[in-house]
Amino acid sequence: MRRKQGMVTPNPEAWMARALRLARHGYYTAHPNPCVGCVLVKRQTVVGEGYHARAGEPHAEIHALRAAGEAARGATAYVTLEPCSHHGRTGPCAEALIEAGVKRVVIALSDPNPQVAGRGMKMLREAGIDVECGVLENDARELNRGFLSRMHRGRPFVCLKMAMSLDGRTAMASGESQWITGPCARSEVQRLRARSGAVISGVDSVIADDSRLTVRADQLDLPDAETIAGRQPLRVIVDSRLRLPLAAKCLRQPGRTLVATCSCDAERRQRLEAQGAEVVCLPSAPDGRVEPGALLEYLANAEDINEALLETGATLAGAMLDGGWVDEMVLFVAPTLLGGTARPLFELPGLVRMSQQKPLDITDIRALGQDWRIIAIPHSRRLQATDTQETGAQPSTKVP
Amino acid sequence: MRRKQGMVTPNPEAWMARALRLARHGYYTAHPNPCVGCVLVKRQTVVGEGYHARAGEPHAEIHALRAAGEAARGATAYVTLEPCSHHGRTGPCAEALIEAGVKRVVIALSDPNPQVAGRGMKMLREAGIDVECGVLENDARELNRGFLSRMHRGRPFVCLKMAMSLDGRTAMASGESQWITGPCARSEVQRLRARSGAVISGVDSVIADDSRLTVRADQLDLPDAETIAGRQPLRVIVDSRLRLPLAAKCLRQPGRTLVATCSCDAERRQRLEAQGAEVVCLPSAPDGRVEPGALLEYLANAEDINEALLETGATLAGAMLDGGWVDEMVLFVAPTLLGGTARPLFELPGLVRMSQQKPLDITDIRALGQDWRIIAIPHSRRLQATDTQETGAQPSTKVP
Repeated sequence: MRRKQGMVTPNPEAWMARALRLARHGYYTAHPNPCVGCVLVKRQTVVGEGYHARAGEPHAEIHALRAAGEAARGATAYVTLEPCSHHGRTGPCAEALIEAGVKRVVIALSDPNPQVAGRGMKMLREAGIDVECGVLENDARELNRGFLSRMHRGRPFVCLKMAMSLDGRTAMASGESQWITGPCARSEVQRLRARSGAVISGVDSVIADDSRLTVRADQLDLPDAETIAGRQPLRVIVDSRLRLPLAAKCLRQPGRTLVATCSCDAERRQRLEAQGAEVVCLPSAPDGRVEPGALLEYLANAEDINEALLETGATLAGAMLDGGWVDEMVLFVAPTLLGGTARPLFELPGLVRMSQQKPLDITDIRALGQDWRIIAIPHSRRLQATDTQETGAQPSTKVP
Repeated sequence: MRRKQGMVTPNPEAWMARALRLARHGYYTAHPNPCVGCVLVKRQTVVGEGYHARAGEPHAEIHALRAAGEAARGATAYVTLEPCSHHGRTGPCAEALIEAGVKRVVIALSDPNPQVAGRGMKMLREAGIDVECGVLENDARELNRGFLSRMHRGRPFVCLKMAMSLDGRTAMASGESQWITGPCARSEVQRLRARSGAVISGVDSVIADDSRLTVRADQLDLPDAETIAGRQPLRVIVDSRLRLPLAAKCLRQPGRTLVATCSCDAERRQRLEAQGAEVVCLPSAPDGRVEPGALLEYLANAEDINEALLETGATLAGAMLDGGWVDEMVLFVAPTLLGGTARPLFELPGLVRMSQQKPLDITDIRALGQDWRIIAIPHSRRLQATDTQETGAQPSTKVP
């Protein structure tokens, strides 16, 4: 038995899903701003829509209102984030919606900035507009997890990327290493970099691999690859004792390289600066290395980094995981075995008993060419903003 | 546009798929015989069908012919394996098909026993029956990969089962270990054991874990669990120097325990035998350990083992993999990390350069509760029957 097909009246979730789909157009370009989409609907018809493409350009609501023109009057606006109430480059979006005569505003997620959350909705309601919030909120949250992390926790969302053999090895004992994953996995790594405001690596990895840590347009496999690669993520080298070689390739790439150190060696610093590096001095942890919480706080506060991609070796990766700083692991698994003497995925020196193991939730496994991508969420990750304060890390000043 | 639904006349593949589905009913019980199904079809109607349940019981064709009775006359028989031509417990099936007046016989796979292959078909053809062979041959081959391995290569199909953390570790450095996978994965291991004629383990694993290596009905999660568990796989302990503790749990379980050694220590041997173990002396490899090729050849020839499940530690697993004796890896991955000092999945001592890595084909990844099961085929596996002869292994005599 088949039911006769009739016209289906879209529900608020259907329009919001369309707004979210629009918002995703800013996925690689909007940061440090959030990805936002807006759809204006009147009599079950889209009269205008838009998304926020990049900082400095109009917000999603403004694009949608411009497209709708007079048709915006009496329309319902579906917008993935609470319209702003402050005067930015284009004036408050809440005001623009009021002026355009919009009748109703449906919102996915209230403004994650605790300083202004609810203000946009208040402004709309005071103008007599019907406001609903929370439609497809989880999707909107996931799309802007980096922006939310920066707003709520004062640090970027940290994604740890690693590539390993099926038996959990990254290189031979001798240090001999080569790409073990194929072109599909490498292209996915490029997209991970492109969506990140910063790529973090340890100085030992840079010394060993001399990676460029850049986004290459020809490997992105995205329609607007050139535009995306035109804006490189900040390269952050964690280099407690300023050992970064002056000839390192990452110093000779488009975009900026930031060396995060706790060394006071002015001479080394000047030599690195002469090669184009920026150097920032951060508090050290008891082990004498850069305190991870301080680094992340610095990246959020001074550099507006929403998402940071950690691409590094077993020691720094282990320390970051151990400290609870890793929000998500993206693991590329090559179909090969390297054996028991090859280099491990993680150094977790304190882990000696089964009871200390680090449980994860594996949320996704899928094939990428001949390789596989595993996404896992460590149970250890710090969820609260207050967690960073436990470390005693202080906000740091940016060094030019 | 939808096409009007009409009656679909099943093609030979559709009937053969039904026969294969029947054959799978013998998956856990038919070995050392192959799984075989038979469907008798007349005027697009099934007039009789059957499968081979276990050695000593009638073959699939006989079950189908009995069910069909007189209706078999003029029918087409779809049978997943070439009907036998020799006098076994029930007389040759080819003869029975001829006597019943079957008009046509469609076969998936010719008899893998090189001594009799083609004889059944010849017998049928000489009786004027139309014979077709090769329909869904690959599926029939996969279903009986163990039987085919024993017939073609003179050794069992070897499946290596391992359980590891996401970073490729099986236990802590101290040896501390516990189930890291959940009940779904453990139940799947029980089914792997149940389908295997033998479970092979190294003496060090038995000493460390004191595993029972048995099939437990309550963990099988299969409808006929009690029947299946009533027949335990042969437990094979690779114990070159006869170090198996006399108190080992595996010696006190239903079914047989076979100790494979190259030690001539008659006293130790007698003590093990007094505990119910059977001991077989096999040729040793240059490293003084039991030669894997000789062991597998023994299991195929003297014990009629089609599939052997290897459940052991990093050293024996590594040696078996390195020697090309592993046909398939079944890897259970628990969502946890154990760190860089924990025990490795494989010891592959000769593997020191990237060029020596062991590539695999990952053929399946799926969730099992909170864990994941990965199936991988090592590129190193030996495909040819003649490979075993390279090792110089000689057939051995079974010791009571």
